[in-house]
Amino acid sequence: MLTFVGLGLYDERSITLQGRDAVRAADRVFAEFYTSRLAGTTVETLEESLGIDIEVRDRAGVEEDPKLILDAAAEGDAVFLTGGDPMISTTHVDLRLRAADRGIDTRVVHGTTAQTAASSLTGLQNYRFGKATTLPFPDAHGGEGVPDSVVATIEDNRERNLHTLVYLDIKLPAERYMAGSTAAELLAVPLDDPIGVVVGQAGSEDPTVDGDRLSALAERDFGPPLHMLVLPATPHPLERDALVTLADVPADRLDE
Amino acid sequence: MLTFVGLGLYDERSITLQGRDAVRAADRVFAEFYTSRLAGTTVETLEESLGIDIEVRDRAGVEEDPKLILDAAAEGDAVFLTGGDPMISTTHVDLRLRAADRGIDTRVVHGTTAQTAASSLTGLQNYRFGKATTLPFPDAHGGEGVPDSVVATIEDNRERNLHTLVYLDIKLPAERYMAGSTAAELLAVPLDDPIGVVVGQAGSEDPTVDGDRLSALAERDFGPPLHMLVLPATPHPLERDALVTLADVPADRLDE
Repeated sequence: MLTFVGLGLYDERSITLQGRDAVRAADRVFAEFYTSRLAGTTVETLEESLGIDIEVRDRAGVEEDPKLILDAAAEGDAVFLTGGDPMISTTHVDLRLRAADRGIDTRVVHGTTAQTAASSLTGLQNYRFGKATTLPFPDAHGGEGVPDSVVATIEDNRERNLHTLVYLDIKLPAERYMAGSTAAELLAVPLDDPIGVVVGQAGSEDPTVDGDRLSALAERDFGPPLHMLVLPATPHPLERDALVTLADVPADRLDE
Repeated sequence: MLTFVGLGLYDERSITLQGRDAVRAADRVFAEFYTSRLAGTTVETLEESLGIDIEVRDRAGVEEDPKLILDAAAEGDAVFLTGGDPMISTTHVDLRLRAADRGIDTRVVHGTTAQTAASSLTGLQNYRFGKATTLPFPDAHGGEGVPDSVVATIEDNRERNLHTLVYLDIKLPAERYMAGSTAAELLAVPLDDPIGVVVGQAGSEDPTVDGDRLSALAERDFGPPLHMLVLPATPHPLERDALVTLADVPADRLDE
């Protein structure tokens, strides 16, 4: 049996009780931290807190050489741990399909996600979010500034009066994280400087939720990673109150 | 302090360790089960499993008369428990804003959500989902069949080649849940009988994930609630493999 367990958003306490029980019952526990990582903890703390040994696999050790994990799952109970929800990344879906090909039973234990936190912490209604997008570092997509596809997704949502969640680029294992201020600076001109909300340290006890025009957000420090950026559509009355109260958006900016 | 804690998707083990710690440390724990409820557990089991007493509030006890909860939060540590993530429903955002108005600190402990599970269990990539929609019971929206707005949302996503998550109507406390088969039957004609995937019992040890043309799904039994319906866009190659392997979509149907 191969059980995919999501560690959730932030630290060693973001896992569900179901997930904790699954790792404790497993014969072997693998993990990968190249698609995402928990900003609030370490592998050592996870091991100590959950009372387990974790075998961390790099990208090659999952994608090119999955045999070690699949053999363990064929012989006993193996768990594969990842940040957030375990099936959000395509590489994990691929591993699940390889397990199914070998006749190995699989199971998914869900985790809390950035997508949920973006809606939850801003007070913007989840059913009003359109397609999400990821903003890459300018030096990572071979072009300058912002890819047209990112702007097109945001504009398309805006035309339909939907919110957009912008994931910010992460380079692992280099631990390079795009800051909310960088994202705001990159997007201010192509989007004509709309209101945005930076969400930082989602899942922690004291997350950052701070909104204003992107040109103003570009000048601020939102603390340690991870950051994401939400671009609200025209808010409903309750959403408007939430933006002002929970995200400190200056009320007069919403009326401009 | 008022801490909103999400119970997650399914039963008493769907809560995070952070959430469990918050309810255990609280002076008083309130809950509501009128916007959603956990299909896999009871209030008694939750109380026993978490080692707490839960004061269940009905809609009037939250929305018209929130004073009891807010007073408890002003005097000590109060927790407000809900299924899924605690801020997905507007009524909870409203309660959070009322607390802020009274100068009461608030905090959010996230939970796993149906939105995440819909993507995760089907293998459909989360960034390819467009706006979600809710399908009401025909007798609940004052019309016949399916509201135009539901069809419009699905068609609009389809034109942009995005997946749609369709939440199915729930009537609480009457415990009336729309079945995936009912949803498939309602939508088959207006949508011209596309492929759909019913996801049931998300968050449980053995969820249902079953896809086919809607006219075929209309004839099936997907087990106990809750159900939701996913309408995939044209799948990418890995998504196609996932639909066939994880959701039992007949491969030839995807090529028609």
